Amino acid sequence: MSNANPISTQTLRRLPTYYDYLKSLPAEVKNISATSIARELRLNDVQVRKDLALVSGGGKPKVGYVVEHLIDDIGRYLRYDYVDRAVLAGAGNMGHALMCYEGFARYGLDIVTAFDNNAGVIGTYINGKRVLPIEEMGSICSKQDIKIGIITVPAAAAQDVCNIMVQSGIKAIWNFAAVKLNTPKGVIVQNEDLVASLAVLSRHLKQGGDEA
Amino acid sequence: MSNANPISTQTLRRLPTYYDYLKSLPAEVKNISATSIARELRLNDVQVRKDLALVSGGGKPKVGYVVEHLIDDIGRYLRYDYVDRAVLAGAGNMGHALMCYEGFARYGLDIVTAFDNNAGVIGTYINGKRVLPIEEMGSICSKQDIKIGIITVPAAAAQDVCNIMVQSGIKAIWNFAAVKLNTPKGVIVQNEDLVASLAVLSRHLKQGGDEA
Repeated sequence: MSNANPISTQTLRRLPTYYDYLKSLPAEVKNISATSIARELRLNDVQVRKDLALVSGGGKPKVGYVVEHLIDDIGRYLRYDYVDRAVLAGAGNMGHALMCYEGFARYGLDIVTAFDNNAGVIGTYINGKRVLPIEEMGSICSKQDIKIGIITVPAAAAQDVCNIMVQSGIKAIWNFAAVKLNTPKGVIVQNEDLVASLAVLSRHLKQGGDEA
Repeated sequence: MSNANPISTQTLRRLPTYYDYLKSLPAEVKNISATSIARELRLNDVQVRKDLALVSGGGKPKVGYVVEHLIDDIGRYLRYDYVDRAVLAGAGNMGHALMCYEGFARYGLDIVTAFDNNAGVIGTYINGKRVLPIEEMGSICSKQDIKIGIITVPAAAAQDVCNIMVQSGIKAIWNFAAVKLNTPKGVIVQNEDLVASLAVLSRHLKQGGDEA
């Protein structure tokens, strides 16, 4: 048995939604119940109650949570107070997009450098950050103690880049390439396959057309 | 019973990976087996065999598939020959990124217009496409028969935008906002919650730290 709260990936994925909702409330709202949050976000209220109880001890019967404290508790759990530094490999369109997405800063992510192996891109700047040759990833990651790697290279190159990241000490990989990555134990991979999502959407339209 | 092949979302999400892999093969490779594809993509070969059999009748014992035909069969199933037009709501960073992501064209998606309600953004151009006031969505969608809507507005505004899309005749919504959307029957929602993925990655690092 561990002292740490056991928390499911699904709960973890819902926490930023609670956080954003609470942050969006007007300053006049001092207290809020799990039931209200559930109603507003169209989630099951038992689930919301359980999720919040895992990260905050501040919920009181009738009164609910103090909004400010609950924001702090969730933010601390999600480490929004702590900036995670990340490197990105593949300075193409998607890489460029992520480097320029200011939204991540709010959630404690700072993409410090992009790497590429294209001589035409190396040395250029994206959102004020220099693109470096991929050979320098190891030294940058170890010097700056970077543990998150973002892969936005084509699928065929993704496993090679993943291996370089693992050798560079990366422990959490955010994979935007449409390929399953092999990683050693202790390294987590989160897949974000936009093209796969597109296939689901497009196919739904085709099926709708079949029925019509 | 329906004549249409029953196909799972998971199979559908794997098809673009097969497609990309087959397209990346050198021209000399004329035939390929499901086993080879599975090995290369690190997938289960029984699964690959089943997936391909759902979209192509061209597999032969010993010989496998004719690469060119299999590409055609998967591409046709995923409607890559047909361009799906989409509208996007929310011309902020993520919206901008998706408008500029050339990769979608390869997979038959054309984001024709971005909508926003910010007067400072309306009338500007992103990647050659004009940003329009959100009030014009209905007429644009009906004139151009657009069925896919992409939501990149803040979470608090997403349901309102979703409602406008549904009223505009959108049948498939790609939601990048961190909120669960309510839609009527017949409208599919595909959620792409990047901030939720980030929470999972960041928390993994924290837990790694706890164990150390």
